[in-house]
Amino acid sequence: MADVARAVGVSTGTVSRALRGQPGVSEALRRRILRAAESMDYVVSPAASGLVTGRTGSVAVLVPFISRWFHARALAGVHQPLRRSGFEIVLYHVEGTAERREFFETLPVRRKADGLVVIALSLSEAETRRLEGLGIPLVGASTHVGEHPAVGIDDVAGAAKAVHHLANLGHRRIGMIRSTDEEGIHQGVSRRRLHGYRTAMAECGLDVPEDAIVSAPWGIDGGARAMGELLSLRHPPTAVFAEADEVAIGALRTLRRSGIDVPGRMSVIGFDDSPMAELLDLTTIAQSVHEQGLLAGRLLVEAVQRGTVAEPRVLLDTKLVARGTTGAPPDQG
Amino acid sequence: MADVARAVGVSTGTVSRALRGQPGVSEALRRRILRAAESMDYVVSPAASGLVTGRTGSVAVLVPFISRWFHARALAGVHQPLRRSGFEIVLYHVEGTAERREFFETLPVRRKADGLVVIALSLSEAETRRLEGLGIPLVGASTHVGEHPAVGIDDVAGAAKAVHHLANLGHRRIGMIRSTDEEGIHQGVSRRRLHGYRTAMAECGLDVPEDAIVSAPWGIDGGARAMGELLSLRHPPTAVFAEADEVAIGALRTLRRSGIDVPGRMSVIGFDDSPMAELLDLTTIAQSVHEQGLLAGRLLVEAVQRGTVAEPRVLLDTKLVARGTTGAPPDQG
Repeated sequence: MADVARAVGVSTGTVSRALRGQPGVSEALRRRILRAAESMDYVVSPAASGLVTGRTGSVAVLVPFISRWFHARALAGVHQPLRRSGFEIVLYHVEGTAERREFFETLPVRRKADGLVVIALSLSEAETRRLEGLGIPLVGASTHVGEHPAVGIDDVAGAAKAVHHLANLGHRRIGMIRSTDEEGIHQGVSRRRLHGYRTAMAECGLDVPEDAIVSAPWGIDGGARAMGELLSLRHPPTAVFAEADEVAIGALRTLRRSGIDVPGRMSVIGFDDSPMAELLDLTTIAQSVHEQGLLAGRLLVEAVQRGTVAEPRVLLDTKLVARGTTGAPPDQG
Repeated sequence: MADVARAVGVSTGTVSRALRGQPGVSEALRRRILRAAESMDYVVSPAASGLVTGRTGSVAVLVPFISRWFHARALAGVHQPLRRSGFEIVLYHVEGTAERREFFETLPVRRKADGLVVIALSLSEAETRRLEGLGIPLVGASTHVGEHPAVGIDDVAGAAKAVHHLANLGHRRIGMIRSTDEEGIHQGVSRRRLHGYRTAMAECGLDVPEDAIVSAPWGIDGGARAMGELLSLRHPPTAVFAEADEVAIGALRTLRRSGIDVPGRMSVIGFDDSPMAELLDLTTIAQSVHEQGLLAGRLLVEAVQRGTVAEPRVLLDTKLVARGTTGAPPDQG
């Protein structure tokens, strides 16, 4: 390390900080040091540095369904500040119930990471306790891990915005499509968005049409089926709030196949603002997914390097994106 | 380890193999051993095991643009066999030119992984040599790393299928939309798909309309712009092969905004079969992205554990998915 320090003209302490990605070294200087270290074939041994600091130099990310845009984008966000701070990112992708159970049973992350970010996974209390047993900083991105630092959105307020928009257009009979996971369960996000829907309906003085709150498995097919159910009611709603864009897109498919004009005879609003929403001109409630990941990654860096975080709960704003699938209700004449 | 072996009733050699994810242990037995090890709070130390085997127990994955469905799905595929074999997956996500350059300059993966999978990144010769300097097995997924094992598709044959389909429908004047990367360069995949287009045009006895081969930056906006260019020709083509679905979707947007009926007045075919293609009823050439990742992951496991792979080049088939954006050309009368 002394050779590198001499070559760059800085102290060995600075070289050490730069190589470990610790603060107090400018980005330009860090790169100069990295290049010098590189040219001398000097490699920071995480094991060796771990002997001193008790750290592994790695952080773990636990994420389900990276094939979905939401999770992939959050992961890209998380990755950025962690890499910039010199951490290796160890990825744990859990796709189904069995993989998830195995992860929490075996906890492969033990002693391999200085911290853990959990992306968009609603944890049970038992799962949260398992993670707490790791004894490392935990951060939630688009979810929360018990009382640990987390970045998310206000789902209740976001869902209320969707209902307000429909009510402001003149709709009185507003339905909702909810989603269940692979085990047929409504996750926390679904419960919060239902709560936001009910709250806003009450605020607007509207009755909640209980028969027009339907559930289906998450995804386009589920949304398509749920809309079919709504269309078979004696009095279908004139507008529907779908708890996620994928679900809303399925609903639109059923409406198109049934020859029902959108928004002339039925308005549809989603949630998330996925790339598909823009493409299909779907009105939706936008959230910044990449930003949630990015801020969660920063919180973890802070927690690992300083042992504490200044602002442990970050709630990002949601925004209505008015597009072509919402409009005034048909005349009831 | 002897305690674990006694508890499960197997040899310590079996326990060791199970904990390291080496072959020769059934999945059921491996899980029993993991649970027993877990209950005894026994953790395999990668460092300790590395002292014996010279291995880290980790493999690295280098991937650009995980926010795009293609890359995320390939990553999910790669992840699966690696995790099942007990490796930790260290993720290196490079999003732009600067990050990519830094990765190859500093090679953060050095001495931290037993092998590396590169996903969908067209490597320069210099970059390939840098990776070879790591001295670990290298595998390409939807790309290739020099002569190292790789899994991909036959882009030339796939592009030819697209052209054959259009020619079979009766089109004579078939254009192509190509894509460039952030630096304005046509990557290998773009060159191979152009080659397939030219080959198939020749096979069908059709002249290549050179003015109807246009390029734009990758993505929906680029595709939209490229289609605008085609529409401004003295003799626009009656059908267009877009080298990727995202590009085709942009082209469709321009056609919709211009009030040009698809496929009545213009046929469009894409490549990849993205989730959006199905949603927008886009005819396309399908490739199995998840499978490419999965097979590449398996190749790397094989290379790390056995030092060699049985089948170093895997080319997966592509398939025409005929949907609503291709049809017979308009009457030329």
